[in-house]
Amino acid sequence: MAGNSFGTLFRFTTWGESHGPAIGVVVDGCPSLLPLAESDIQPWLDKRRPGQSRYTTQRQEPDQVRILSGVFEGRTTGTPISLMIENTDQRSKDYGDIASKFRPGHADYTYWKKYGIRDYRGGGRSSARETACRVAAGAVARAVLGSAITVRGALVQIGPHKVDRARWDWAEVDNNPFFCPDAQAASQWADYLDGIRKSGSSVGAVVEVVASGVPVGLGDPLYDKLDSDLARAMMTINAVKGVEIGNGFDAASLTGEENADEMRAGPEGEPLFLSNHAGGILGGISTGQDVVVRFAVKPTSSILTPRRTIDVNGAETDILTKGRHDPCVGIRAVPVGEAMMACVLADHLLRQRAQQGR
Amino acid sequence: MAGNSFGTLFRFTTWGESHGPAIGVVVDGCPSLLPLAESDIQPWLDKRRPGQSRYTTQRQEPDQVRILSGVFEGRTTGTPISLMIENTDQRSKDYGDIASKFRPGHADYTYWKKYGIRDYRGGGRSSARETACRVAAGAVARAVLGSAITVRGALVQIGPHKVDRARWDWAEVDNNPFFCPDAQAASQWADYLDGIRKSGSSVGAVVEVVASGVPVGLGDPLYDKLDSDLARAMMTINAVKGVEIGNGFDAASLTGEENADEMRAGPEGEPLFLSNHAGGILGGISTGQDVVVRFAVKPTSSILTPRRTIDVNGAETDILTKGRHDPCVGIRAVPVGEAMMACVLADHLLRQRAQQGR
Amino acid sequence: MAGNSFGTLFRFTTWGESHGPAIGVVVDGCPSLLPLAESDIQPWLDKRRPGQSRYTTQRQEPDQVRILSGVFEGRTTGTPISLMIENTDQRSKDYGDIASKFRPGHADYTYWKKYGIRDYRGGGRSSARETACRVAAGAVARAVLGSAITVRGALVQIGPHKVDRARWDWAEVDNNPFFCPDAQAASQWADYLDGIRKSGSSVGAVVEVVASGVPVGLGDPLYDKLDSDLARAMMTINAVKGVEIGNGFDAASLTGEENADEMRAGPEGEPLFLSNHAGGILGGISTGQDVVVRFAVKPTSSILTPRRTIDVNGAETDILTKGRHDPCVGIRAVPVGEAMMACVLADHLLRQRAQQGR
Amino acid sequence: MAGNSFGTLFRFTTWGESHGPAIGVVVDGCPSLLPLAESDIQPWLDKRRPGQSRYTTQRQEPDQVRILSGVFEGRTTGTPISLMIENTDQRSKDYGDIASKFRPGHADYTYWKKYGIRDYRGGGRSSARETACRVAAGAVARAVLGSAITVRGALVQIGPHKVDRARWDWAEVDNNPFFCPDAQAASQWADYLDGIRKSGSSVGAVVEVVASGVPVGLGDPLYDKLDSDLARAMMTINAVKGVEIGNGFDAASLTGEENADEMRAGPEGEPLFLSNHAGGILGGISTGQDVVVRFAVKPTSSILTPRRTIDVNGAETDILTKGRHDPCVGIRAVPVGEAMMACVLADHLLRQRAQQGR
Repeated sequence: MAGNSFGTLFRFTTWGESHGPAIGVVVDGCPSLLPLAESDIQPWLDKRRPGQSRYTTQRQEPDQVRILSGVFEGRTTGTPISLMIENTDQRSKDYGDIASKFRPGHADYTYWKKYGIRDYRGGGRSSARETACRVAAGAVARAVLGSAITVRGALVQIGPHKVDRARWDWAEVDNNPFFCPDAQAASQWADYLDGIRKSGSSVGAVVEVVASGVPVGLGDPLYDKLDSDLARAMMTINAVKGVEIGNGFDAASLTGEENADEMRAGPEGEPLFLSNHAGGILGGISTGQDVVVRFAVKPTSSILTPRRTIDVNGAETDILTKGRHDPCVGIRAVPVGEAMMACVLADHLLRQRAQQGR
Repeated sequence: MAGNSFGTLFRFTTWGESHGPAIGVVVDGCPSLLPLAESDIQPWLDKRRPGQSRYTTQRQEPDQVRILSGVFEGRTTGTPISLMIENTDQRSKDYGDIASKFRPGHADYTYWKKYGIRDYRGGGRSSARETACRVAAGAVARAVLGSAITVRGALVQIGPHKVDRARWDWAEVDNNPFFCPDAQAASQWADYLDGIRKSGSSVGAVVEVVASGVPVGLGDPLYDKLDSDLARAMMTINAVKGVEIGNGFDAASLTGEENADEMRAGPEGEPLFLSNHAGGILGGISTGQDVVVRFAVKPTSSILTPRRTIDVNGAETDILTKGRHDPCVGIRAVPVGEAMMACVLADHLLRQRAQQGR
Repeated sequence: MAGNSFGTLFRFTTWGESHGPAIGVVVDGCPSLLPLAESDIQPWLDKRRPGQSRYTTQRQEPDQVRILSGVFEGRTTGTPISLMIENTDQRSKDYGDIASKFRPGHADYTYWKKYGIRDYRGGGRSSARETACRVAAGAVARAVLGSAITVRGALVQIGPHKVDRARWDWAEVDNNPFFCPDAQAASQWADYLDGIRKSGSSVGAVVEVVASGVPVGLGDPLYDKLDSDLARAMMTINAVKGVEIGNGFDAASLTGEENADEMRAGPEGEPLFLSNHAGGILGGISTGQDVVVRFAVKPTSSILTPRRTIDVNGAETDILTKGRHDPCVGIRAVPVGEAMMACVLADHLLRQRAQQGR
Repeated sequence: MAGNSFGTLFRFTTWGESHGPAIGVVVDGCPSLLPLAESDIQPWLDKRRPGQSRYTTQRQEPDQVRILSGVFEGRTTGTPISLMIENTDQRSKDYGDIASKFRPGHADYTYWKKYGIRDYRGGGRSSARETACRVAAGAVARAVLGSAITVRGALVQIGPHKVDRARWDWAEVDNNPFFCPDAQAASQWADYLDGIRKSGSSVGAVVEVVASGVPVGLGDPLYDKLDSDLARAMMTINAVKGVEIGNGFDAASLTGEENADEMRAGPEGEPLFLSNHAGGILGGISTGQDVVVRFAVKPTSSILTPRRTIDVNGAETDILTKGRHDPCVGIRAVPVGEAMMACVLADHLLRQRAQQGR
């Protein structure tokens, strides 16, 4: 059934295949009177755009966004905002192998079985190209959040190599091609990923997204909790296999004493939390602390080493994926994760205002 | 806004506080003509019911379910199935501390800030007692899934202690008070948890839920993927801080070669997967393999060691939680996780039938 | 699929059959801190309750509502409000004819074909008894609307006999058993309906519901317009076959000059409308004028005159419906229509606050 | 909040303003493998297109539809179908009066008050131009319905002049510029409407839409009934002020004897209804008879006669609307009503298959 929309009050719907004429997103429910221009959206798309370093796919797409509706004289009108990105790099080529064989670990097989048909050109609907639409929607969400709420992402692990949190510096994120907050790790990753890339292999990664300035009270228990919506949001991103909030899986190893975020009184009686094991969410509702989400991205299945598979006729064969590919798709997932966080927060900001009037 | 419903076609809505007269769930969208009686639901509630070993809270609730609508002459009618469980253990007692102080790591503070009021008796709406309603809904979902699909859960980690997967035996799950599939680990856990319990502490855990017999094709990309719905589902359970599918976070450390699930041809041309790193889901759609989900449960914040906090007036104070509590809430999360898995699958089974007619 | 919920932000879900143990409604999304007690709900149920005059069914049900959740110390908590009404008049009796034969004009046949099973006792789920749940939800909605918004209903036509709008007096509505605003018409209707009742026949009616004090700006074009939600709302009420806003079908006969609601400037620059042909809604958004909805209720199909029909085996037969019935079900539809109006307005009040912050 | 989508399983979302670069619709949830090309959609758009007779606006728009996604090699893929229509007639002109004054009976005032801003060029989002998107979505819906279900519409009243049902001939609908099934009435209307047009006035109308071949069992009581969804659907169309099913408002004047649709047994035990007062829907579920819906369209507020109004500053003034306009917008509402009927049926066909498997 219809499954290409996300959000309830701030809601977007994406469409498009990687090799069709265009992809796009319709953002519905955006409050009116917000300043919005294509130049507010384009920088985020540029951040996600491939081909900017040797660590992402060399496919070249300008990813130029057009606003087709919902903005009048520079401000949102409260009506649907239609954003479109034309596909320019859709030259005809030989998809022979991908068209008839299933890549192990890819959605080829499941799309084919579910729908009985699939647009096999470049991944079709399952292509990571669709995430450009999320990034565009996220830029609109940022306009809703305003300047008081900041959403930032970083890559915290590539393959087995994690950042050292003692060296965390947000300013470093823009200084390397990995969105890495640890300059030393970034340099290590460069060597490591060169090896992966040259061998035609791929590797997984972990992304962390942090939202600061989120007011206390966002999230609708029990089934539209802030964390459950974030978990859903991140898990919809291509190749994501795990999501955690705050301490996440490490919380399993802790005792209640260790995991509690104790409180002292701030100058106006508000709590000063002494730690943030909870990742800014308790009972599905934001605490006012930083909201911290991490997600794991698996290695892409498009690799040069042949893997055993079957074809659409059920015959056994091998497959290897030539051509441009991402040695670590987790890198470009950083701006996508940020966008999804922004959209979830925008939706819950409106939800809270609806129910509680503030 | 309204946030107490789960599912789209197979949809349930829960209500009730831990110390009100009753809790309940309305299951809407269930196909008609399915055999259903209270005796089909009660065993699952009994499995979740507290007070069955010294490792769960000693609170005694019979958790007797009543079917109030939607079933006629032993079969579902296709109309809403209303299930109610009366609260019998709601004796008046002194909630003084909990009423005025915030337990660190608990939803006390966020509910109070979001709503400006909260039913502080026994956790009110945020109490794990609500999960009984999920288990009841899950029993109805199992009727939808039929006997070809099996949903089973197990505890795979308590505190730092994991099961040994080489010793995994589903039959063991019912032989110990932990739903542990590894007899040796269960025995180790008993000692460990006795220590936690006696010191008035608590500890986290990891639950794994596995669905077998799931047909290929379930899940609606891109935003109602099977895995994103499962992530949301599990993250709505009290105290859950992380969710992963298949390899999950470990996938971050793997290469594309290691993570691929290669395929050989089965006798009728269907794929025989040589591994299941994907946890039975590719591109958000089930592969036909076992669907494997894990989630991390944090330690409960109700502990005997005093923790620093503030009260509703913003004054600094300490709090410790006396009385009956769960040393490891993860144990009782096992049947809850199973129920949520069953509900997600029932919903997607109907969704797939809607769109694709099978 | 799941179809027993109404509303988006202020959302209710009803359950129950006329001859099961109880019926009920769960109201989700209600703002917190609103004063609410059973005594705020009961008067509206009493207004709808049958058996209060000889013009409605003599079935006796106290329709005593219980609040099972969502209210703490006299105020709403923002969590689901579960309301339950026990069925006391569910004595066993012979339903033979209704069980096996289809009443022409009744939902007997369609339920049976759709679901393959139906609870035939007293109409089961299709019974007008369910409307008590709507009225209960409507009472909660009124708490959301507050005192500035008034929702009132009246019967404006029974059979061919209409009220004279020149004699309209809201105060009369409570002075006769018809909710009739025209004392003279009420007296005429009494005679007319006695005839219908004595002959075991039934007759249709038209209900008008008016909301005053509705602020300008409610309604979400283009598909969740205020009028389209009202049309849907009223059409869900049993036996309703038509809905109109303002001039409604009469607008078809008018010219643009006649149908325009001209404006003059009020003391503070706000418009003073010189008429209200639009029924308070333009472009799907409230204008600030009275919102005026009318709906037509068909005569009940439960009559004493035999009608030709078939039975569940496809054999031709006749049917007549003995026992207690409503000569004009439209009468009791008045409080139901009010309740649905209140629920639609409450939902849109929250929706507007969400998007536009006021 | 987000209000620009319609449908649940078969769901469409529209976007665009009348004078922006384009308008469009995203259809989500469409089953895969259906043959679909632009040439399947274009004829329905051509039917709705203005400027085809002197009785509709002379605005010239080719309304050429493009399929941007969701179709591969001539068949639907089950992914979102994005349809776009470029606006070619968007020349800059003087909107002075409309920009600053409110047309009585138009959405000018309410949009301005709701959003604080509006795209006043040609009606912006509230323009009837958006209905082209509905027609495009309706064409896709027809592909879902298949050839067994037919959806046809006709104009049955213009101003005070109704068709004579004794002369009803579906074949006549395409023989006159009014979609009128009664040749004699069509000729009368031509004279009448010439007068309206020449005087710069406008007039209302009534449209009837009939679906044949609808299987018994569609509709989800109690709040997603087939008739309540149809009522909502039709009421979302611009200028619609009333909706009725079958006998509609006339049912108010009838007795139970008159209104019952008696049944005889057909050759295979299925019912043969002796009449169709119910309009093919009982208890919110289709009976298998023709589904019959009528809706009233008010006269457009764009007329040449000056009307009293205020401007955006609250000052009193007059307004008259020059230029191209529709003397009877009801005419072009016929294909729009058909499209909405098709979309509702497609949605419920999928819903029924989901819950009941057929």
